[in-house]
Amino acid sequence: MAPRKSSYQVSATPVTIFAHLLVVAVTVLLLVWLVDKREGLAFKSDNQLKIFNVRSFKQLHPLLMIIGFVLIGGEAVMAYKTIPGTRRAQKTVHWLLHLIALLAGVIGIYAVFKFHHESGIPNMYTLHSWLGMITICLYGLQWLLAFFSYVFPGAEISARGSFLPWHSFFGLVIFFLAICTAETGLVQKFIFLGLFRDQEALIVNFTGLLILLFGISVGLTVVLPTT
Amino acid sequence: MAPRKSSYQVSATPVTIFAHLLVVAVTVLLLVWLVDKREGLAFKSDNQLKIFNVRSFKQLHPLLMIIGFVLIGGEAVMAYKTIPGTRRAQKTVHWLLHLIALLAGVIGIYAVFKFHHESGIPNMYTLHSWLGMITICLYGLQWLLAFFSYVFPGAEISARGSFLPWHSFFGLVIFFLAICTAETGLVQKFIFLGLFRDQEALIVNFTGLLILLFGISVGLTVVLPTT
Ligand code: HEM
Ligand code: HEM
Repeated sequence: MAPRKSSYQVSATPVTIFAHLLVVAVTVLLLVWLVDKREGLAFKSDNQLKIFNVRSFKQLHPLLMIIGFVLIGGEAVMAYKTIPGTRRAQKTVHWLLHLIALLAGVIGIYAVFKFHHESGIPNMYTLHSWLGMITICLYGLQWLLAFFSYVFPGAEISARGSFLPWHSFFGLVIFFLAICTAETGLVQKFIFLGLFRDQEALIVNFTGLLILLFGISVGLTVVLPTT
Repeated sequence: MAPRKSSYQVSATPVTIFAHLLVVAVTVLLLVWLVDKREGLAFKSDNQLKIFNVRSFKQLHPLLMIIGFVLIGGEAVMAYKTIPGTRRAQKTVHWLLHLIALLAGVIGIYAVFKFHHESGIPNMYTLHSWLGMITICLYGLQWLLAFFSYVFPGAEISARGSFLPWHSFFGLVIFFLAICTAETGLVQKFIFLGLFRDQEALIVNFTGLLILLFGISVGLTVVLPTT
């Protein structure tokens, strides 16, 4: 198949590179926030027991949700534009990365429930927690549906093509839900911590901005053709 | 032009009807919240001076941002699918509704700045305020760019077509930003008010859920063809 450009007149490649850079930037910002400003992830504590500290469960939630769920999920979406080689290889990377993101998401939500349980904080009363629960459930459903349509050996060949636009559309919708949930989580944490114009506030807000920019870039790579 | 269906095999019409119903539902929820649970919008106060009460500026912000900016903006996006008649008529409704949404958005942001000023609350330190400011600026830019490309008499005809996919893509991105901003605003207000599992908390959270559903429906009408 000859390479072609859509009416957008731009190839997806530069956008994927920009998205990769955002992955690095968000990861760095997040680690600076959680390790340096917050209680740390038990990497560099003088108290070795902090590795098993309840507080680290609290830190695990944003870490796993943003790096594990949102960033890896976004890379999975971009796989058809970023992975060199056969379509088959791209497909494998796509569903494997989505599986990793799903698992990271489930563990990340488990972590906040465990933290809440151990601190006696009630569950599921915020809009953030509702959006989060809806997102992870739809993500799991979408993964299962796609696995049994496209990957599982006996998958009905004829249904694949007609289902594909819906798979892409709802894939993007669920990814958008994940971004939205992450933003509400950051805003919530910001207010719980009572941040205000200090370095930590800027780190949290810029993390939110860059995640949004990442989401837009990933969306753009979906509509743009490869060179 | 003969009506055709895209590979989605579904027409936009039922989705636009669903979106209209969500507009009604969100409006009702929001009015119940602001008039009945909060200080009111100065409609039914025993103190007539409440109409000019500073507190009402505070209430105006969510009202104008959600009904004026998000819901009317969404209706503007759907105009090409919902307005019967010529393409020309659809186009006029499209840009006029966007203009109304833009003005409502600007007044809504003015209202919260005024409220902050009169209460001595600092400005622009939250992620919500950053996202909101970015959203309204991009919305205004997009409007101007489109107006001078498509509406203004001397608009360069040849540039219209090639610019259209970008107009649609960034239009949806900005609409998505608006939804995201509204969600963070609701989450923030929820925590500022210290809500927790009472009726008001449920009203706020369901407003957030329905706005998201509205956003997804509007996005769907853009990719689906008319019957
Ligand atoms: C897509 C990403 C995310 C998902 C799916 C998600 C999901 C969830 C869920 C389901 C809960 C409820 C736990 C419970 O009630 O015990 C929760 C709680 C929480 N999350 Fe997230 N989360 C995400 C990202 C984030 C981020 C980036 C932060 C920022 C620090 C964050 C901060 C919080 C906080 C503070 C809570 C506890 C308060 C509450 O229940 O709302 N979340 N999250
Ligand atoms: C797309 C819709 C929205 C936009 C563009 C937007 C924009 C803004 C902006 C620019 C500010 C900063 C004002 C200042 O610093 O003085 C602000 C503040 C605020 N908004 Fe919104 N807003 C939106 C929706 C909402 C909604 C639905 C709520 C829910 C009640 C809300 C609640 C607040 C609150 C509580 C503040 C004051 C705290 C702060 O500065 O973050 N907003 N908004």
